[in-house]
Amino acid sequence: MDLQKTVRPQVPDFEPYSPGLAIEEIRERYGLGRVIKLASNENPLGTSPVVQQALAENAALAFRYAQAGTPRLNRAIAEHLGVPEGAIVTGNGSDEVIDLIVRVKARPGVDNVIAFKPSFSLYRLQSKLCGVEFRQAPLNADFSFPWDDLLALADENTALCFVTTPDNPSGYAPTAAELEALARRLPPQCLLVIDEAYMDFVEDQDAHSLLSRRDEFPNVAFLRTFSKMYGLAGLRLGYGVLPEWLGDYCRRVKLPFSVNVLAEIAGIAALADRDFVCATRTAVCEGRSYLRTELESMGFRVHPSHANFILVDMPADAPFDASALVEGLLRRGIIIRPLGSYSLPRSVRITVGDGEENREFIRAVREFIANA
Amino acid sequence: MDLQKTVRPQVPDFEPYSPGLAIEEIRERYGLGRVIKLASNENPLGTSPVVQQALAENAALAFRYAQAGTPRLNRAIAEHLGVPEGAIVTGNGSDEVIDLIVRVKARPGVDNVIAFKPSFSLYRLQSKLCGVEFRQAPLNADFSFPWDDLLALADENTALCFVTTPDNPSGYAPTAAELEALARRLPPQCLLVIDEAYMDFVEDQDAHSLLSRRDEFPNVAFLRTFSKMYGLAGLRLGYGVLPEWLGDYCRRVKLPFSVNVLAEIAGIAALADRDFVCATRTAVCEGRSYLRTELESMGFRVHPSHANFILVDMPADAPFDASALVEGLLRRGIIIRPLGSYSLPRSVRITVGDGEENREFIRAVREFIANA
Repeated sequence: MDLQKTVRPQVPDFEPYSPGLAIEEIRERYGLGRVIKLASNENPLGTSPVVQQALAENAALAFRYAQAGTPRLNRAIAEHLGVPEGAIVTGNGSDEVIDLIVRVKARPGVDNVIAFKPSFSLYRLQSKLCGVEFRQAPLNADFSFPWDDLLALADENTALCFVTTPDNPSGYAPTAAELEALARRLPPQCLLVIDEAYMDFVEDQDAHSLLSRRDEFPNVAFLRTFSKMYGLAGLRLGYGVLPEWLGDYCRRVKLPFSVNVLAEIAGIAALADRDFVCATRTAVCEGRSYLRTELESMGFRVHPSHANFILVDMPADAPFDASALVEGLLRRGIIIRPLGSYSLPRSVRITVGDGEENREFIRAVREFIANA
Repeated sequence: MDLQKTVRPQVPDFEPYSPGLAIEEIRERYGLGRVIKLASNENPLGTSPVVQQALAENAALAFRYAQAGTPRLNRAIAEHLGVPEGAIVTGNGSDEVIDLIVRVKARPGVDNVIAFKPSFSLYRLQSKLCGVEFRQAPLNADFSFPWDDLLALADENTALCFVTTPDNPSGYAPTAAELEALARRLPPQCLLVIDEAYMDFVEDQDAHSLLSRRDEFPNVAFLRTFSKMYGLAGLRLGYGVLPEWLGDYCRRVKLPFSVNVLAEIAGIAALADRDFVCATRTAVCEGRSYLRTELESMGFRVHPSHANFILVDMPADAPFDASALVEGLLRRGIIIRPLGSYSLPRSVRITVGDGEENREFIRAVREFIANA
């Protein structure tokens, strides 16, 4: 028997994952000294010195299992947000929490999940892996959200609705009033999951998030992460702020040690490190504004962004396309994100770097254009 | 509508996870200075100094996503074992690899998974979460493996057979010849998954493992971990050595950043640190032998073990039971593992500690018995 044929029918047409370009790869490929990565929305200031110290001091703990379910971290997050501890479910990145929610809430072969298009690929992939139908409503041309189109996809078997705000790759954020209307209009069995991975970068959060009013919305769950504002992308730490019954179920089914011991320690240290958050916020605001001004002066269209990245369209009459720009920057040691996988071949996404990285990037773009 | 009632039917009867006792908890509860944990089969020597240094030196990388799919680590493991890179799938602990294999191979509502009883709880839990029937054959009274009983559970819908060797909590390891016979007798569609979490502690591995002959067994997968011999339990790093077609599928469906950046760095450092492995092996051999001699002299029955832990039955005429021993040791600052959850209420499992921990443990047992 060919064992390979006994695989679950959902699995074979998963695409092999194509990993993003690593700094070392680019360095080798183009024989470069320094490479600047503005491609993965990591923190422009790197890892907080406070976190680095906590990691170095606790390296000897690597051999010990963390306390299952990270109760100390859950308490710290709950206090930070002013929500009950029972609402918090930590995960190996919010990726794991997305997977958990689909597994707990959506019945394979029966239920469906709805979201906009494009949206974070894991909503689709985890639904597919679970054997759950995934439906998508295309975004408006300006990346704003066509709510009626999304609601038109929902029926009595819609288990979950995923919305990302600020959205990726656009940086667009709808108003809290719009999210409230969505929560009230979804079918009663449907849980609205609002992925707020980049919400920490939004200036007026209450105008864009329902989290501070979560008691009013028993059908809404929130996802947050330590990967962006808190600079812990590599350590993997995300969490859900969930209705408590769902938190209880997710904690029951999740792998008990999925959050590693150093992520727990780093997460607690990062939450207390207000200076780093403050400095990151300033760096992102200033950098975003600088990049926008400079790119617009070169004829690029820069979409307004609430996050630590910007979506940029090529100038209308440019003698180059987005992939040429990406390649031209790679040769100059700068990695940005092409958006073919988001079906946006005329655009690129640029993560806001630190001051020097941003200036190097602008210099490289000017040089590329001069030679295009 | 009560949203809670829309949960998947597999979920509600998952038990809330009861986390093991943490050192801090015991310290507080009993007002103790030092607490010795011999409960989770962690490395008796702690974290290797080489790994600690690698972690401290790379703490600043915490803000960067690792390279998706950990290609550098995969290469290092493949070289270490002399297997093709395509066979290696790393995970957030081997827990994640177990979950992946069930999700990729077993069809919900159709297939079944077989294993012995007791066995590692995740085989059952992940099968259940996937909606896959889980069947168990009780072990022999001496913890050896009743192969015919296991095979009697298999039918044309048996997708997976999990076997742990050395087994937990007994430390028993069947011969390679027995495993070979099992692999040849299982139905053709069934994949045999041999969980070798503790194989690194076995003295004559070729006599107990099929891994060096994996080319002969296209229906066998192997699981290994960095949690035990390599001292990285808290960082979460395990892997599968899989048939390459299954490796390909698992890499496609797994969350791309499930292995954190410091686990990858630590794993590569740990593989190269032969001194630590050698010292750990010596410490476990000596400690196991010491514990056995001392406990047998007090009338306990100590089961032979190939791993870094021992299964111990209470003396036949003891005026105390296993839970009294566990509690008596806790009061003296020593955590061992009761085995009620393995349906072995008359036994305890003791992880081999370092020399001093083992002597402290024996001293505490003597004191407990003198006062029992």
